[in-house]
Amino acid sequence: MNPHYYGLILAGGRGTRFWPRSRKRSAKQVLNVVGDRSLIQATVDRLAPVIPPERLWILTNEHLRATILRQLPEIPRKQVLAEPEQRNTAPAIGLAAHILHSLDPEAVMGVFPSDHVVSKPSAYRAVIDAALKGAAGRSLMVVGIAPRWPETGYGYIEFPAGTQAGAQTGPVPVERFHEKPKLPVATEYLAAGNFYWNSGMFFWRADVLLENLREHLPKTFAAISALPRFGARDFAAKLKHAFPLCDNISIDYAVLEKASNVSGIPAADFGWNDVGSWNAVYELLPRDESGNVTAPDAVCLEAHNNFVDARGKVVALLGVNDLIVVDTPDALLVAGRDKAQQVGEVLKLLEARNRHDLL
Amino acid sequence: MNPHYYGLILAGGRGTRFWPRSRKRSAKQVLNVVGDRSLIQATVDRLAPVIPPERLWILTNEHLRATILRQLPEIPRKQVLAEPEQRNTAPAIGLAAHILHSLDPEAVMGVFPSDHVVSKPSAYRAVIDAALKGAAGRSLMVVGIAPRWPETGYGYIEFPAGTQAGAQTGPVPVERFHEKPKLPVATEYLAAGNFYWNSGMFFWRADVLLENLREHLPKTFAAISALPRFGARDFAAKLKHAFPLCDNISIDYAVLEKASNVSGIPAADFGWNDVGSWNAVYELLPRDESGNVTAPDAVCLEAHNNFVDARGKVVALLGVNDLIVVDTPDALLVAGRDKAQQVGEVLKLLEARNRHDLL
Repeated sequence: MNPHYYGLILAGGRGTRFWPRSRKRSAKQVLNVVGDRSLIQATVDRLAPVIPPERLWILTNEHLRATILRQLPEIPRKQVLAEPEQRNTAPAIGLAAHILHSLDPEAVMGVFPSDHVVSKPSAYRAVIDAALKGAAGRSLMVVGIAPRWPETGYGYIEFPAGTQAGAQTGPVPVERFHEKPKLPVATEYLAAGNFYWNSGMFFWRADVLLENLREHLPKTFAAISALPRFGARDFAAKLKHAFPLCDNISIDYAVLEKASNVSGIPAADFGWNDVGSWNAVYELLPRDESGNVTAPDAVCLEAHNNFVDARGKVVALLGVNDLIVVDTPDALLVAGRDKAQQVGEVLKLLEARNRHDLL
Repeated sequence: MNPHYYGLILAGGRGTRFWPRSRKRSAKQVLNVVGDRSLIQATVDRLAPVIPPERLWILTNEHLRATILRQLPEIPRKQVLAEPEQRNTAPAIGLAAHILHSLDPEAVMGVFPSDHVVSKPSAYRAVIDAALKGAAGRSLMVVGIAPRWPETGYGYIEFPAGTQAGAQTGPVPVERFHEKPKLPVATEYLAAGNFYWNSGMFFWRADVLLENLREHLPKTFAAISALPRFGARDFAAKLKHAFPLCDNISIDYAVLEKASNVSGIPAADFGWNDVGSWNAVYELLPRDESGNVTAPDAVCLEAHNNFVDARGKVVALLGVNDLIVVDTPDALLVAGRDKAQQVGEVLKLLEARNRHDLL
């Protein structure tokens, strides 16, 4: 294990599409929607052989920090930071690069979402290892995943024509990034073969990222560079002042789409899923012979292809199909599976009604 | 108010179609599925001007007796009896007739279901009054309700051709009783005009009913006649012994379809509904502009014609139609509205799995 490898896990999101189980204080990444471990615990578990917990850092928010500390006792407390306010990814990553560079000038950092699922962790780790090696050579590294279907919900990475997943020994230069495509375009991407799903993971030396920030996002770079040494008594206070001065922009827009030295690993699929909705959870979990995902004590009569998450309660489904049923002590969601992406609209309505107790 | 008028409210049923709110200890009749009062409380309320609570008797079972006593403190405790075991209506009615006759040889009794809804109580009471008057004249009296649609879930009472609802001043002889018809037959009934819904209410002098029992159901009559005086110390013990000797048969089959002196009131509808399922509750309650019956704090998005009963919890419906959603602390039902009649099948399955905690 390279001692200069560090991981930054981004865990500031809300995951509103997992309401009513997700709330401000129990966002998607701390829920155990698939399996016994929460998504962020599973992230730490699968990284451990490449980047041990003592070199993992987590950026989250004040609502979630206590839960994350409780779920991940193996990560040093000081490495679990709450952003002073919600920003996009560029300030968070810049801050982490600043801290890591100050602690280890040779630091190579991987940036990881906290709420994805990976069903082939060994294959995943081989890819992470290759990406970190590429980053140690001063590239800005991304990871593309060979698409399995013409997904319209992901961004795509375009590699040179003829690029084959898993066939390269090292990084491949990225031609271009593409936003979430419409279906005909996604279908072309799939057929072309050199378009890969953007996994949302980044790898770079901390100093290389800071150089890029200085060039492409000078205001953010200045605010972050002016911070005192991490661990200094006034660090938190100064951060609270500096963070709102940073640009509210994603690292993709701010740096990756502008930088010249961007390369990537065109990876064969390692069972990756960004678990974007309850329907994605339904797709991930084992179903009974009627296509239902339920607890063993559920009663299903003339019921097909339903997803149920209702803990400590027997659920009876009678003559219903393609539903999502999620029960919690104070809120119950019944939705069509095809409406799983729109669960956030329920929250907007609850917010408009001042039902902050349910957000 | 005629001091010889008594009421017997039959409250021994389970109402399994109202699961998960209905349980052995909270059967349909003690639930407040429409409005604030339970169905049996509403029954007592609406009868009060014709038959006061002190002359009402209730036959129920051991599971429900405590709840009924709590819900109806205005009824003398000794008049709320638990059947030693579940039998059909003939033994229960025979028992009540035996007791009432022993207390008042002139007793005229009305027999009432405990779980129906009546939205026009004044019209209802006028009909009850007419039926009781008819019964005082030694007829076996029933009440027919002018059908509003070709219902296949009710039995029908055939009056002589030309009978018009509400046009008669006194009882009309009953030609025949008809079982629940198929739709084409029900449609003929509706068109004919002299076929009325059987409301399940009966009116007769206690002595007349006992005479009929002696003639048509001698075994039951013998078992009941041998009971000691009501209030005697060994009454309960003897009843426990006598009740299983009674025929397990409805009063309709046992007496009404055989007796010669059966008359009825062909009544105009008094907003009667037997509330046979959650879908009947849906039909009874006010709906929002999307046809949903929900609590005021529910969230409905692209959701139409759903029924929700979930107390103390916010329910969000997203892209779903024609559902029944009933939530309780330990069980949740999600069913198609067209499957409301089959909720009992869920209970059969739970029973087969020994989930007696949920029955």
